[in-house]
Amino acid sequence: MTPDVLLVSVGGDRREAVPWIEAFGRRLPGLAVAALGDAVDPAAVRYVAAWKHPHGSLAGLPALDAVFSLGAGVDHLLADAALPAGVPVARVVDPDLTNRMSEWVLLQVLAHHRQARRYARQQAEARWADDPHQPAARAVRVGVMGLGVLGIDAATKLAMVGFDVAGWSRSPRDVPGLACYAGTGALDAFLARTDILVVLLPLTPDTEGLLDARLFGKLARGGRLGGPVLVNAGRGGLQREDDILACLDDGTLRAATLDVFTREPLERASPLWRHPGVTVTPHNAALSDPEAIADLIAGQILAHRRGEPLRHLVDRDRAY
Amino acid sequence: MTPDVLLVSVGGDRREAVPWIEAFGRRLPGLAVAALGDAVDPAAVRYVAAWKHPHGSLAGLPALDAVFSLGAGVDHLLADAALPAGVPVARVVDPDLTNRMSEWVLLQVLAHHRQARRYARQQAEARWADDPHQPAARAVRVGVMGLGVLGIDAATKLAMVGFDVAGWSRSPRDVPGLACYAGTGALDAFLARTDILVVLLPLTPDTEGLLDARLFGKLARGGRLGGPVLVNAGRGGLQREDDILACLDDGTLRAATLDVFTREPLERASPLWRHPGVTVTPHNAALSDPEAIADLIAGQILAHRRGEPLRHLVDRDRAY
Repeated sequence: MTPDVLLVSVGGDRREAVPWIEAFGRRLPGLAVAALGDAVDPAAVRYVAAWKHPHGSLAGLPALDAVFSLGAGVDHLLADAALPAGVPVARVVDPDLTNRMSEWVLLQVLAHHRQARRYARQQAEARWADDPHQPAARAVRVGVMGLGVLGIDAATKLAMVGFDVAGWSRSPRDVPGLACYAGTGALDAFLARTDILVVLLPLTPDTEGLLDARLFGKLARGGRLGGPVLVNAGRGGLQREDDILACLDDGTLRAATLDVFTREPLERASPLWRHPGVTVTPHNAALSDPEAIADLIAGQILAHRRGEPLRHLVDRDRAY
Repeated sequence: MTPDVLLVSVGGDRREAVPWIEAFGRRLPGLAVAALGDAVDPAAVRYVAAWKHPHGSLAGLPALDAVFSLGAGVDHLLADAALPAGVPVARVVDPDLTNRMSEWVLLQVLAHHRQARRYARQQAEARWADDPHQPAARAVRVGVMGLGVLGIDAATKLAMVGFDVAGWSRSPRDVPGLACYAGTGALDAFLARTDILVVLLPLTPDTEGLLDARLFGKLARGGRLGGPVLVNAGRGGLQREDDILACLDDGTLRAATLDVFTREPLERASPLWRHPGVTVTPHNAALSDPEAIADLIAGQILAHRRGEPLRHLVDRDRAY
């Protein structure tokens, strides 16, 4: 009898799938683990673990029980119109990934607040500070958009460092110690009190392109940092990159730190690399350890085979 | 009758004392506030508020009741052999200053941990990351030397971000959630488990020059950052700057972030400005707001005049 198959797809590139196939193979000795495109019986494929698979490639798998994202986001799966309807889609909820994201958010927010770039420039000129005073964290208003697991952890830690933190989410949330704004009706008030906007939203049809000149124009003026700052570690599709550049140039934004881009890797020709107001990191704010992700997905598959329900399922209507 | 006098000295430069004289004058209408060197009756001077006063200049004040440091450190006062014996010396313990220091410590530790300089270099080359993976905070061992108010706050916040934190102090301390090492006998064990050494010690005869090649050689090898990192925001006198440079060059240290220097401002000729392993900030890790310091010192003076005891007094034998 053919063993059940776990199919792995990483951007349609078989070489990128190989370490994942090995990691899953060690954890799931009862399954055959193969790359998308390998010669396997489609009727034996019970599970798919994918990151940016080629659209259409997961159709025609009649025995498919579940599709796992190899990361926190699922937009890359749901964007495939040929993804089999009715098959459960599960996210990875890795506690380590939450910590990693908060490390990055704290670093980037503190770097803006404590003017790391200014001191790096002064160091390059062997110049002691003219005006060394800086506002206290409590005088800096940070707004976190997206209050999922990642957003709540980041907001809580930012507040613990002393920042004046508020959060915004689509649905109402109650987070102890955090001023929470909910829904599109409260968005303007949230933006109007925000000096540093930290974006940890999922990419959905509602949020695509949300970070545009109109939104940037609603951020707080007159804050202690000399202008509003954007920090996006959600998804590149949330942002209009031309608007970011234009708003930096006309002073609507003071600075931006971006870990995500509409096209990744960011093209060498992109002006974002070279703009003095932009800090680029290569979509590694919260890369969790592949071994940890393999543990979590293999654990889900083993539980499913014991007849237990799958966890962290995505609501495909809400797209997250 | 001559009013009682508060004398202000900032490095012996009258211009630097002026904003302080104004700030104290607003808070202490019953006192005359003057700069060191102004024509005042020495017998009327009851209080001194000083930062790096000229040594010997506080002798010959027969009615002196208390000397206040204008910052957290008191080494600049105690180093003056002519400081009148028996007169109480008080530190400023500003809760805001504690928060400011922890902001800076978190920023610098996270910048080493998450390789901010490497990504800045890659950005300058418009280069996406080759290997974007980085260790989790829990895989990075931070050691905080000095467990006063500043050290405990920084250590607690570093632990909250996820770092594997231990602390060292001269006298035994018990800090919830922190592995505490105490005394010279435990120093080697503390250093041997430390990837990032954060120094928040006071400058005393015991700690002067403590941060030397011998100590750096005892830090952990084989950690996840490729070599030990020094972060000093205590006092410049703690460190041997030639040793730091030599240890960076021979690999004993991987990197150093220094907010304090044996001579400040750091001379333009210092190789510390230009060494690729060194990050310089201009002794502004924890500059608290002069208005906040004036509040605290004026509050002490008003309490003293009501007959209440002075707080935050320095043990002049222990020098902190």
